[in-house]
Amino acid sequence: MSSKILYITRRAEFAASHRLKVTGWDDNANSIAFGKCANLHNHGHTYTIELTVAGTPDETTGMLMDLTELKKLIQEHIINHVDHKNLNEDVPWLQGINPTAENLCVEFWKRIQPYMPAHVRLYKIKIWETENNAAAYKGE
Amino acid sequence: MSSKILYITRRAEFAASHRLKVTGWDDNANSIAFGKCANLHNHGHTYTIELTVAGTPDETTGMLMDLTELKKLIQEHIINHVDHKNLNEDVPWLQGINPTAENLCVEFWKRIQPYMPAHVRLYKIKIWETENNAAAYKGE
Amino acid sequence: MSSKILYITRRAEFAASHRLKVTGWDDNANSIAFGKCANLHNHGHTYTIELTVAGTPDETTGMLMDLTELKKLIQEHIINHVDHKNLNEDVPWLQGINPTAENLCVEFWKRIQPYMPAHVRLYKIKIWETENNAAAYKGE
Amino acid sequence: MSSKILYITRRAEFAASHRLKVTGWDDNANSIAFGKCANLHNHGHTYTIELTVAGTPDETTGMLMDLTELKKLIQEHIINHVDHKNLNEDVPWLQGINPTAENLCVEFWKRIQPYMPAHVRLYKIKIWETENNAAAYKGE
Amino acid sequence: MSSKILYITRRAEFAASHRLKVTGWDDNANSIAFGKCANLHNHGHTYTIELTVAGTPDETTGMLMDLTELKKLIQEHIINHVDHKNLNEDVPWLQGINPTAENLCVEFWKRIQPYMPAHVRLYKIKIWETENNAAAYKGE
Amino acid sequence: MSSKILYITRRAEFAASHRLKVTGWDDNANSIAFGKCANLHNHGHTYTIELTVAGTPDETTGMLMDLTELKKLIQEHIINHVDHKNLNEDVPWLQGINPTAENLCVEFWKRIQPYMPAHVRLYKIKIWETENNAAAYKGE
Repeated sequence: MSSKILYITRRAEFAASHRLKVTGWDDNANSIAFGKCANLHNHGHTYTIELTVAGTPDETTGMLMDLTELKKLIQEHIINHVDHKNLNEDVPWLQGINPTAENLCVEFWKRIQPYMPAHVRLYKIKIWETENNAAAYKGE
Repeated sequence: MSSKILYITRRAEFAASHRLKVTGWDDNANSIAFGKCANLHNHGHTYTIELTVAGTPDETTGMLMDLTELKKLIQEHIINHVDHKNLNEDVPWLQGINPTAENLCVEFWKRIQPYMPAHVRLYKIKIWETENNAAAYKGE
Repeated sequence: MSSKILYITRRAEFAASHRLKVTGWDDNANSIAFGKCANLHNHGHTYTIELTVAGTPDETTGMLMDLTELKKLIQEHIINHVDHKNLNEDVPWLQGINPTAENLCVEFWKRIQPYMPAHVRLYKIKIWETENNAAAYKGE
Repeated sequence: MSSKILYITRRAEFAASHRLKVTGWDDNANSIAFGKCANLHNHGHTYTIELTVAGTPDETTGMLMDLTELKKLIQEHIINHVDHKNLNEDVPWLQGINPTAENLCVEFWKRIQPYMPAHVRLYKIKIWETENNAAAYKGE
Repeated sequence: MSSKILYITRRAEFAASHRLKVTGWDDNANSIAFGKCANLHNHGHTYTIELTVAGTPDETTGMLMDLTELKKLIQEHIINHVDHKNLNEDVPWLQGINPTAENLCVEFWKRIQPYMPAHVRLYKIKIWETENNAAAYKGE
Repeated sequence: MSSKILYITRRAEFAASHRLKVTGWDDNANSIAFGKCANLHNHGHTYTIELTVAGTPDETTGMLMDLTELKKLIQEHIINHVDHKNLNEDVPWLQGINPTAENLCVEFWKRIQPYMPAHVRLYKIKIWETENNAAAYKGE
């Protein structure tokens, strides 16, 4: 399996509240831009995150990456920070960032990318807000 | 099909934030009772509701109830009140009620039951907070 | 496990077209009663059927019923008759019956019930037309 | 988030009937080519469509595209034309086209692509006929 | 909410191998009874368990049972014993029991029922072996 | 549709047991490398495989490939070999290969690729071990 490229995907869930608002805009401006998603008292989602890594598996073990290790990285660097939290208020590294699914993809990428093992490349982060809506980022 | 009993189930989704807290308890007491679910700034869920009605279909049409009508009732009496809302702050008829999935089942039942057509019996309301956790109420 | 009651559920899918219409009503009457579901040229669904049986498992084998046998019964007495068919035109035993999900539950029950092994009771037939709409029948 | 490329996916469902047939072929030829999918009286599916767009989100709002707007475009230019319809008979812009999932992907692409906002690129249309079969098109 | 009856369902997954065989039967007899499920070297499943409890929620908190506590009970008394295990060899309390889904429901019930809080009644255990096959037990 | 590139995906399920172990390593070394996945008596999964092919559909029929034919190829060259089997013991062409999801993707690719019709390119094989873990291979 020397030089083959494989992909591993790990799904995880977290529950969070958020409110779409641009820092510096007043409530009216936010309401015009984001409609019901700008509701002052927030709303929430059970988010599903799918994180995919790519790389060449170890020739002996046939594993690209220990799934338990990948699960732990997602838990430690993402889920523990956002699960049962308010994304506007409770997460220091999301301060000043409008918590759209698009922005969450990018910020999650920034958080977890530095902890990826050297032989593995973070390939995609996809976030489902509902079973009908998702955003994804591939580091481009 | 004269006297047969049939069941119809309609699923719907809504996004809401909530915080588990008992009115009159201080933050510490709520935190002890509800752990991370008592987070001051709320968290949220993409809730899935499954509402089931029972009854005897019309002999001519073979329909228990027009699904479009059932969808409208759920939309008007439940979803429109809670979607993209904070269940602790934004819903007058949930004021003073701890928004557990159990309580939501009961309160949603009270809201929609009076609008059911006379020949149909509300049979069950089931609410999924995540793909792993649900509560249900059958009016007993 | 002598006298315990267990339940087994088997899911299957079929693709069919149908048009809601009451035999003897003109197109206008059907259209008023069933809206877009009365479309003259039919529409269709990928139906999911969940069939549940109940009974006491064999004490030695610990099986209520061989799942392969149950799968075969569903295939032979239901799926083979309705898959890739027009429910209004192609199924002799549905002639004159408005193919609502409710009626399909009852007619499927009538078809397959006589073939159930003696020690097993047909308990429920549930049919999903979409991921949001289902009907169910329990033989009552 | 200046020049980052993000992807947004929106799922929707529609119910339609169809029959696989090549215009100009007789019933026998169609039956040989398409088997049970050529059934004269049609069959049907609850189709699921996943439409993905790509582009650079607005720097201020962090949104690639308003999901409500995307939902509306899909509803207006695709779903309203095909839901509860016969794909062989009821859709003017599908006349003469064999309604395979592959062809539906391409024709849906042609319908909706012109209405995409200028800063957004239609990236993929994927159509599930059943939970086991899908086709996809990426405009290549 | 004094005397209302509510239901809570918790889903969990485990991965296990098994081989259907009746203790005391030879390989040939097992093969005749269980077909490919009697394969000498075992096969396996990613099992999904849905455990439902019933009872009257606490009037003050509106909770029937802390979901975290329910999750812990399932983990400690079921999942930890069977996950990544061979159900024929590795689980002392399944020795001599043919690991059909029916028997698993009953044995899991016996294991976890004694640990249920006094005010709660174990209502149902349902086990999916695949997305198409399930067994359930309600303690009857 | 002359030169357009379309993709078709077919899902299938199989149940198998496996044990992660490197040939030539002792039990202790395997246990250190693979943790609970090295359990001597194996564990198992209900695997879901998604196989995607790419190519240009026939201009007349609008089909890239007959889905029934694709289903048959997957059944004959993959599912029949691994369903209800022990991946370490029962599959000749997996002998000496550690049955990680990564390795399964590559070996399945090798098995089925030669049987693909000439006008179609095998594009991706994705294997889900649980609803949260997947591996994929694209022939690179």
